[in-house]
Amino acid sequence: MKAIGVRKGEEGAKLLDISRPEPSAGEALVRTLRVGVDGTDHEVIAGGHGGFPEDEEYLVLGHEAVGVVEEPNGTAFDAGDVVVPTVRRPPGGVDNEYFERGEADMAPPEATLERGIDGAHGFLCEYFTSPAEYLIEVPDRLAEYGFLVEPISISEKALELARDSRQSFSWEPQAGLVLGNGSLGLLTVAMLTEEMEMYCLGRRSRPDPTIDILDSLGATYIDSRETPVPEIPDAYEAPDLVYEATGYAEHALTGVQALAPNGVAALLGIPGPTEQSVDLGTYHKDLVMHNKAVVGSVNSGPRHFRAAVETLDSLDAEFLDDLITTVAAVEEFETAFEADTETIKTAVQFHSR
Amino acid sequence: MKAIGVRKGEEGAKLLDISRPEPSAGEALVRTLRVGVDGTDHEVIAGGHGGFPEDEEYLVLGHEAVGVVEEPNGTAFDAGDVVVPTVRRPPGGVDNEYFERGEADMAPPEATLERGIDGAHGFLCEYFTSPAEYLIEVPDRLAEYGFLVEPISISEKALELARDSRQSFSWEPQAGLVLGNGSLGLLTVAMLTEEMEMYCLGRRSRPDPTIDILDSLGATYIDSRETPVPEIPDAYEAPDLVYEATGYAEHALTGVQALAPNGVAALLGIPGPTEQSVDLGTYHKDLVMHNKAVVGSVNSGPRHFRAAVETLDSLDAEFLDDLITTVAAVEEFETAFEADTETIKTAVQFHSR
Repeated sequence: MKAIGVRKGEEGAKLLDISRPEPSAGEALVRTLRVGVDGTDHEVIAGGHGGFPEDEEYLVLGHEAVGVVEEPNGTAFDAGDVVVPTVRRPPGGVDNEYFERGEADMAPPEATLERGIDGAHGFLCEYFTSPAEYLIEVPDRLAEYGFLVEPISISEKALELARDSRQSFSWEPQAGLVLGNGSLGLLTVAMLTEEMEMYCLGRRSRPDPTIDILDSLGATYIDSRETPVPEIPDAYEAPDLVYEATGYAEHALTGVQALAPNGVAALLGIPGPTEQSVDLGTYHKDLVMHNKAVVGSVNSGPRHFRAAVETLDSLDAEFLDDLITTVAAVEEFETAFEADTETIKTAVQFHSR
Repeated sequence: MKAIGVRKGEEGAKLLDISRPEPSAGEALVRTLRVGVDGTDHEVIAGGHGGFPEDEEYLVLGHEAVGVVEEPNGTAFDAGDVVVPTVRRPPGGVDNEYFERGEADMAPPEATLERGIDGAHGFLCEYFTSPAEYLIEVPDRLAEYGFLVEPISISEKALELARDSRQSFSWEPQAGLVLGNGSLGLLTVAMLTEEMEMYCLGRRSRPDPTIDILDSLGATYIDSRETPVPEIPDAYEAPDLVYEATGYAEHALTGVQALAPNGVAALLGIPGPTEQSVDLGTYHKDLVMHNKAVVGSVNSGPRHFRAAVETLDSLDAEFLDDLITTVAAVEEFETAFEADTETIKTAVQFHSR
């Protein structure tokens, strides 16, 4: 079958021809519909993140998938069920404590593999198998958008951690600031606009399709070249919630400083080493005197996927259609890995329902 | 009546002669038993923190008090009730939203006064008045230790915020690290030894009374000159909880780095400006990849005082007697403001029960 992956010693994503997997006991066989592409895929392709499965010369990419159960193989699924797979799997196929508790997302990096990213094949292929416990059912009507469940689940988890950290007192966030106007940033803005006034920081000029989406969501676009993060509280308002998805290390710091008293910053971006001079004392004094919180968040667990299905169902179809700018056929998969100023969210399509 | 405070334009804490306060409607008059002295008092005396009440030439110090109701004055208290006052009061005497919600501890600095610290007279005097809503009842048997309720409440709040931030997943802390072996650090170690293996960092050599206390609590003393914070995970174990009470800015950073995956750091120390070169990228990547959290915490609210009364009641009297090294009579109050290697926690006594 066709698959898209990276080969050891070769550059870039390639079309591979591999054998169709056979489901083991407890696994279902899934016919892939669509698989989204995100920044992590680009990092894996560039060799900056993740790794090959043990004893394998290639890695099938893709961790944002939606598919249809082809062979339930004795699991509780029916043929035809639309499902989204979670990403993490236990090394060696043996559950460790995190997987036993259904909290794989809390496993430290050494206690987990990540399909399509680190040590396990992903879903950018015509068929994949998965233990039934890692498949989340999705209503039929969401089949074509289902590859967004995984990225939305990433925000569900981060926002859960952020809200939990503020739950011992009355916390009614009035303003939220998303750092980064990529597809995850836009999805997160869309998830929060009903709850609070939303701001989103980017480095683009109008006309731009991401800014158009922010406009249509009723959110405020902030150009970081005109208004850097430290100036946002005075120019707009101090956010109660900051969501950092750029991986730009300084944003993680200045985002916390920009917070309103009792605010929380959820950090998701993964910066590389960035040495710089910082007033650590003033940074921490502000954190203490204003009861601020910072939560790091990576990956997502089954309950975040389930919450993401509900969230996806609540999002406006017009917004989703604006967000998804490319759905490439397998033969033209490379267009889903290209980025230009008109591209927001891309996916590869393997089958139709 | 006798009071201890600072005068504008003069250095050091002085014995003052001021008039006994009259309770207004809704206020009780309290006869002061003991008032603890802590690092904040020393900062106020040095002029580095807090400020005088409006239109006053002096500030009565003291925010860790216990007393006996002298005149209930129509409040729900009875004469003879042992009470501890909370510290924050609304500016202008008019409740703002934080006070209305009973969450004065979440008020930003500009929305609150602090008795004995910032803009309002404290409790280091023979009698004080307080609205009944800011007086927490304490069992008679705890009268002599009651001045420890305020510092314990500071930790109750910080630990509440820390635990809340970890409540969406199974978090069973095995090890805790308290940075700072002052009286607040020792109280916090004592609060947590039943729940987890406790470590406490200081810069003292044996023989030392704080290390003796840590030994008797079954905690492990770590000398930062031998084992700096970054080496603690390898030399001992990675803590699930870090409690930073030194105000040394670098500890706030290295404490987070030393955390075990999914751990949380509660920051209470208030550092001054400290410019230094830091690898912000690596710091934040670790925070994200290991789902770590950081919570700043200042002050404490009524429910933390009530929890602190229970905690105080559960602490060993021998530990408390070892901790309290000085109880000075008013005339010798200066001995409660002196610090030497034998001094841990000091208080001034105004009356006996």
